[in-house]
Amino acid sequence: MCTAATYKTTDFYFGRTLDYEFSYGDEVAVLPRNYALTFRHMGVLKAHYAIIGMAYVVGDYPLYYDGINEKGLGMAGLNFVGNAVYQKIEEGRENIAQFEFIPWILAQCASVCEAREKLEKMNLVGTQFSEQLPAAQLHWMIADEKECIVVECMADGLHIYDNPAGVLTNNPPFPQQMFLLNQYMHLSPKQPVNAFSKQLPLEQYSRGMGALGLPGDLSSASRFARVAFTRLHAMSGESEKESISQFFHILGSVDQQRGCCEVADGKYEITLYTSCCNATKGIYYYTTYENHQITAVDMHRENLDGETLVHYPIVTGEHILWQN
Amino acid sequence: MCTAATYKTTDFYFGRTLDYEFSYGDEVAVLPRNYALTFRHMGVLKAHYAIIGMAYVVGDYPLYYDGINEKGLGMAGLNFVGNAVYQKIEEGRENIAQFEFIPWILAQCASVCEAREKLEKMNLVGTQFSEQLPAAQLHWMIADEKECIVVECMADGLHIYDNPAGVLTNNPPFPQQMFLLNQYMHLSPKQPVNAFSKQLPLEQYSRGMGALGLPGDLSSASRFARVAFTRLHAMSGESEKESISQFFHILGSVDQQRGCCEVADGKYEITLYTSCCNATKGIYYYTTYENHQITAVDMHRENLDGETLVHYPIVTGEHILWQN
Amino acid sequence: MCTAATYKTTDFYFGRTLDYEFSYGDEVAVLPRNYALTFRHMGVLKAHYAIIGMAYVVGDYPLYYDGINEKGLGMAGLNFVGNAVYQKIEEGRENIAQFEFIPWILAQCASVCEAREKLEKMNLVGTQFSEQLPAAQLHWMIADEKECIVVECMADGLHIYDNPAGVLTNNPPFPQQMFLLNQYMHLSPKQPVNAFSKQLPLEQYSRGMGALGLPGDLSSASRFARVAFTRLHAMSGESEKESISQFFHILGSVDQQRGCCEVADGKYEITLYTSCCNATKGIYYYTTYENHQITAVDMHRENLDGETLVHYPIVTGEHILWQN
Amino acid sequence: MCTAATYKTTDFYFGRTLDYEFSYGDEVAVLPRNYALTFRHMGVLKAHYAIIGMAYVVGDYPLYYDGINEKGLGMAGLNFVGNAVYQKIEEGRENIAQFEFIPWILAQCASVCEAREKLEKMNLVGTQFSEQLPAAQLHWMIADEKECIVVECMADGLHIYDNPAGVLTNNPPFPQQMFLLNQYMHLSPKQPVNAFSKQLPLEQYSRGMGALGLPGDLSSASRFARVAFTRLHAMSGESEKESISQFFHILGSVDQQRGCCEVADGKYEITLYTSCCNATKGIYYYTTYENHQITAVDMHRENLDGETLVHYPIVTGEHILWQN
Repeated sequence: MCTAATYKTTDFYFGRTLDYEFSYGDEVAVLPRNYALTFRHMGVLKAHYAIIGMAYVVGDYPLYYDGINEKGLGMAGLNFVGNAVYQKIEEGRENIAQFEFIPWILAQCASVCEAREKLEKMNLVGTQFSEQLPAAQLHWMIADEKECIVVECMADGLHIYDNPAGVLTNNPPFPQQMFLLNQYMHLSPKQPVNAFSKQLPLEQYSRGMGALGLPGDLSSASRFARVAFTRLHAMSGESEKESISQFFHILGSVDQQRGCCEVADGKYEITLYTSCCNATKGIYYYTTYENHQITAVDMHRENLDGETLVHYPIVTGEHILWQN
Repeated sequence: MCTAATYKTTDFYFGRTLDYEFSYGDEVAVLPRNYALTFRHMGVLKAHYAIIGMAYVVGDYPLYYDGINEKGLGMAGLNFVGNAVYQKIEEGRENIAQFEFIPWILAQCASVCEAREKLEKMNLVGTQFSEQLPAAQLHWMIADEKECIVVECMADGLHIYDNPAGVLTNNPPFPQQMFLLNQYMHLSPKQPVNAFSKQLPLEQYSRGMGALGLPGDLSSASRFARVAFTRLHAMSGESEKESISQFFHILGSVDQQRGCCEVADGKYEITLYTSCCNATKGIYYYTTYENHQITAVDMHRENLDGETLVHYPIVTGEHILWQN
Repeated sequence: MCTAATYKTTDFYFGRTLDYEFSYGDEVAVLPRNYALTFRHMGVLKAHYAIIGMAYVVGDYPLYYDGINEKGLGMAGLNFVGNAVYQKIEEGRENIAQFEFIPWILAQCASVCEAREKLEKMNLVGTQFSEQLPAAQLHWMIADEKECIVVECMADGLHIYDNPAGVLTNNPPFPQQMFLLNQYMHLSPKQPVNAFSKQLPLEQYSRGMGALGLPGDLSSASRFARVAFTRLHAMSGESEKESISQFFHILGSVDQQRGCCEVADGKYEITLYTSCCNATKGIYYYTTYENHQITAVDMHRENLDGETLVHYPIVTGEHILWQN
Repeated sequence: MCTAATYKTTDFYFGRTLDYEFSYGDEVAVLPRNYALTFRHMGVLKAHYAIIGMAYVVGDYPLYYDGINEKGLGMAGLNFVGNAVYQKIEEGRENIAQFEFIPWILAQCASVCEAREKLEKMNLVGTQFSEQLPAAQLHWMIADEKECIVVECMADGLHIYDNPAGVLTNNPPFPQQMFLLNQYMHLSPKQPVNAFSKQLPLEQYSRGMGALGLPGDLSSASRFARVAFTRLHAMSGESEKESISQFFHILGSVDQQRGCCEVADGKYEITLYTSCCNATKGIYYYTTYENHQITAVDMHRENLDGETLVHYPIVTGEHILWQN
C-alpha cells in the first residue's frame, strides 16, 4: 500500500512511499504553467500553477500519484480500497474525476486554505481515464507548511479531516486510524519507568524500550502508528541535506521489503519508490527500491512558462560510489 | 545498539548496523597480509589473511567493529552491556583481548569451522586497549556462507551458539532471543485466515496483516524479531546490485531514526552506519545516517601483500544525483 | 465499566458484569405483569410482560441495569461515556427517557424482532429520573435466542447494529469494536504452526499459544476482544448447571480485580456483580465480587400477575461450604 | 497448565489453579502427624508436621499437587514439561523421588529458610511411583509469609530462585519468566499519560488503559505476566472472607475456560480446580470448574495426632443459593 508524511525544518517537505507489486512506469513529471489542462466535466484550464510530481504519463497526460506546486502545496493519493465511493455527477457543482483531483487542486490552490474552498464546490466522480484504466480507490492527503488535511470520499459523502499527525496510510478510514493511536498513548522515545511493581527489580535491558508496543508489521494501521511515532519525534538539522536525509529515514520506518508482504503466490508488494519534495523550493527527491541513492529533479531548472510536459523516467539500479 | 545479518544469493553477504549517539570516527580499513599484527598476550602475527572492515583507527591499529577476510569469513561485535564478562588470563590458553578478537579470528580462520577450533583454545580477556579505552562489553556473530555462530562470554564462561536465524542484536543473551521467536511463530508474509470465529465476518482490511504482532520498537529484542522475520523471508535477484540492495532493505527494517530513541536528555541513538560486505568478493559497502547512497571499498583494489593499513574515512552528507 | 454476553445451549442465557468503584445498592427486582409502569412522556402501561432484572430501586421504581422478560428477551445497558447523546423530544414519536428504555422494551416486546419495530418509532431522550440522577450515558444490547442487536444513540442519531459476536463492552462505538476484531483474526484455541520460518526450530513451549496477541488488560476494547474470543469458543454440556457454570466462566474472562483499575487516588473499579439470566426459564443468577457462590431468583416463584415490585437485596460476603 | 500465587493480609495465603484436560480424581487430603511416611530411598518418617493439600490418593498414599503444613509453609508442583530433568541417585545425599518432594518438605520444614537447608542436601530423582505413573515433569513454588522460592531441576542441576513476584506458571524456566516481565515494566493500574505526542489530542477513551500491552491468552508466559500484575496490585480488606475472596479473584485472572485451549481434537484444557490455603490457620479452600462456590476443609477439625490419611472427594456441580 502506501504511506505519506510531511516534515518541516526551514523549508516544508512532503512525500510518500508507493508500495505495490508492480510499477506502471513512473516518471517525474513537470507540468508548466501554460500546459492546457483539460478536465472531463470542467473544460480547459490554460494558465495555472506549475506542478512537479510522480506520474504515470499516458500520452502527454500525467496521472499524478503525488506532487507539489510552485506555491508550496503538496498532495498525494493513497490506496483506500473497499472504502472509496465516488459521487455522482451533479450539475451546478464542480465535477472532478478521481484521476483529475491532484492537478485540479495543485493547479489552482496556493494553500490548504484555498484547497478547502475548492473542495466545498466539488463533486469527486468516478469517470474513468480510459476503458483500460478504471478509477482507482484512493484517499488523499493535502498539506502546506501550515496545515494538513485528509480527503475521503465514501458512501456517506466527501469528508475533510484535519490531520495533526501529518501522516497517512490506507485503511481503515482516517478517524479510525487516529482513534487507534490512543492505544499507543504511553509510547515514548524515553526509557520506561517501572510502574509494574516496585517489589520487582525490573531492568531496562536495552535502549529503546519506551516504545514497546509499537507494531512492526506492514499492515496499514500498523504503518500509520509507526510512521506517526517516528515523524512526531523526528529531529534533524535545518539544512536541506539534513532535512531530506531525515525525511527518508522517517519513511524508511515503513519500508516494505521484498518477501515480507505476499499479495498472491510468489508476488510481493514492495516500496517501489519513496519521495521527498521540498515544497518550498520545488524540488522532487526520490529513491527507488533498487536504488538507495537520492535522485532529484528541480522544477525551477525547467521552463515553467512552457506548454509541454517534461518528464524523467526514474533512475533504477544501485548507483554506487567507489572510494577506491 | 546494533544489528547484524547475513544474506546469501550467488555470493555471501555479511553486514550490520552500528547504532549509537556519537561516532568515534569510523573508517573502512584494509589490513593487508603482511601487516604485523601484535597481540598483547600472543606475540606478533606477521603473515595472515587480509581483512577489510569498519574500524576506529588509533595510530595505525584498527579497532574493528566488523569485517570480513579474503576467505569469505565475516565477524561483527555488537553491544552486550551488562552480560559480557571476560575471562581471566590463563597460561596454556590463547589469551585474546576483547579488542583483538576480530583480527585474531579473521586473520587466521578461513571458515566458521576453523573459527570454532580457535575458540576452543581461546580465553577472551578484558585487557584494555589503552587507559582511555576500556574493554567494550560485546558479543559476536561469525559467519561464512555455510554457517553462522554467536559467541557470548558471560559470567559462566564462553558460549558458542549455532545461529539459524542469521541475525544478532544486543541483550538479552542469544538463547533467550531465539526463545522469544517462539512467540512470533504464527507470523507470516501471507494474509491471515479467520480462525477467531467463523460466525464473524472478519475482513483483511489491509495487505500485510499476516505479521500483525511483530514488534515495531527499537529495543534489541524487538529488533531481533523484526530483522529475523525480514531476513528469513527476504527475496531478491542473484545479481550483485540486487543482492546488496536487498541486504540494505533487510537492515533498513531496524534503522534507528534520530529522535526515536533518547538515551540521555536531548541525546539520541541513531544508525550511524549500515554495512553490507560481499564476503565472497571482498567488497565493503556501506551507507551512513546522513548519506543514503551506497559507498564501496574493494579490498582487491589494494595491495593485499602490503604491510600498512589502508583506511578511508567514511563518506558523509547526502550525495544526490540530479536529473536536470 | 461493564461487559455483556449471550450463550445458548438448550436454553438461552443472557448476562453481564457491572464494573464500577461503588454500588448504588443493587437488588434483583421482579416486575409483575400488572405493575403500573408510568412513562414520563408516554403515559401509563398497566398490563405488560413480567420482567426480572438487577436494579437500583428508588421508591418502588426499578432503575434496571439489565433484565429479561418472561418471553425470553434480554436487555442490558452499559456505559458509553463521551459517545452517548440523547435525542430531542419530538411530537408524533414515542419519546422514551434513557432510564425507561429497558422497561419500555422488555414490557412490550417478545423478541428482538418486535424490539426493532419499537425502536423505529422511538426517540431516546435525556429526561432525568430526578435532579439527583442525571441521565446515564449508556448503550444497550438486546438479545433473544435467535439474534442480538446493539443500540447506540449518538450525536448523529440512533443506530441499531446486528451483533454476531454476542458481546458488548463500552467505548469505542460498536462498529469500531467489531472492526478491531479483524486484528485478532488469526487467534485460535489450537496451537500455532510455525509460519515464521521453516529454517528455525521454533517450539510450542506451552499449551494455549494459539491466542498469543489477545489483549489482557481491562480497557473496554481489550475486554471486547477477550470476551468475544472466549464466548465464541466456549463449550459446555447442555444442562442448566453446566450452562450457567460455563456462562460465569465466559464473563470471568473479563473480571475486574480490585487494585488493577485505579479510577481516582485509591479508588478502584471492580466487578460489582456478574449475572446470568436463563431467559428461557426466567431465572436470574448472579455472583458478587465478595461472593463466588451463584445466587438465584426465579421469577416464576413470584406472583407474576401481581401489581407490586418484588425485590431482593443482593447477597454479599462469601458463602462457604464446609466439608468438615 | 497451572498457576500458583501467594497473598498476604493478616494471614498468609497460598494457592494455585490446576489446569488440565482431565482429572485423576482429586481429593483434599489431611496427613496427620503420625502417618508413617515411607520414602523410597530415605526410609520411614514416623512423626512430622501435619499437612493438608490436594492430592490424587492411591491406596492410602497422597500424591500431593499442592499443600500447606501446620507451620504455615506452602508448596505446589506445576508442569514444567520439556525442561524438568531429575538427578541421579547419589549416595551420601538425600535422594527424594519427584512424587515425594512435597511431603518431604512439608513434613519437616517450618519455613522456607528450613526448606532451603533441606534442598542443599537433596537430590531430586526420577524414581517412579509405579509403572503406571511415571515421574511428572514439574517445578515447584515454596512459600511462607516471609519469602517465596522456586525450585527447578534441569539438565544443568537443581536451581533455587528467590521469587519476588510470588507467582509461578509453567515454561519457560523461572529466570526467563522474570526477564519477560521487563517488557511490561510500564504497565500500571493508573491511566496512561500521552507521551506519544503533545501535538495529538489523544484521549483515554476507556478506564483501565494503563495496562494495555498485558497479554490475554492462556500460554504460560502470558499467564505469568497477567497473574503477576494482578497479584502485585491486588487490594482487599484484612478479614478472612475478604482475603480469600480476593485470592480467588487473583487466580481468576488466569482461569482457563472450556473451549479456549484445545490440546487435541475436541479435548480442552480447563481449570479443574483453584485452591486458596490459609497457611496460617490450616484451612484448604477450593472451587472447581463446575462449582463456583468456595468449599473448605479445616485441618484442625481433624485429629492431627492420628496415623491415617483423611481425605474428602472434591465437591462438584454448582451449589446454588436460591433467594426465593
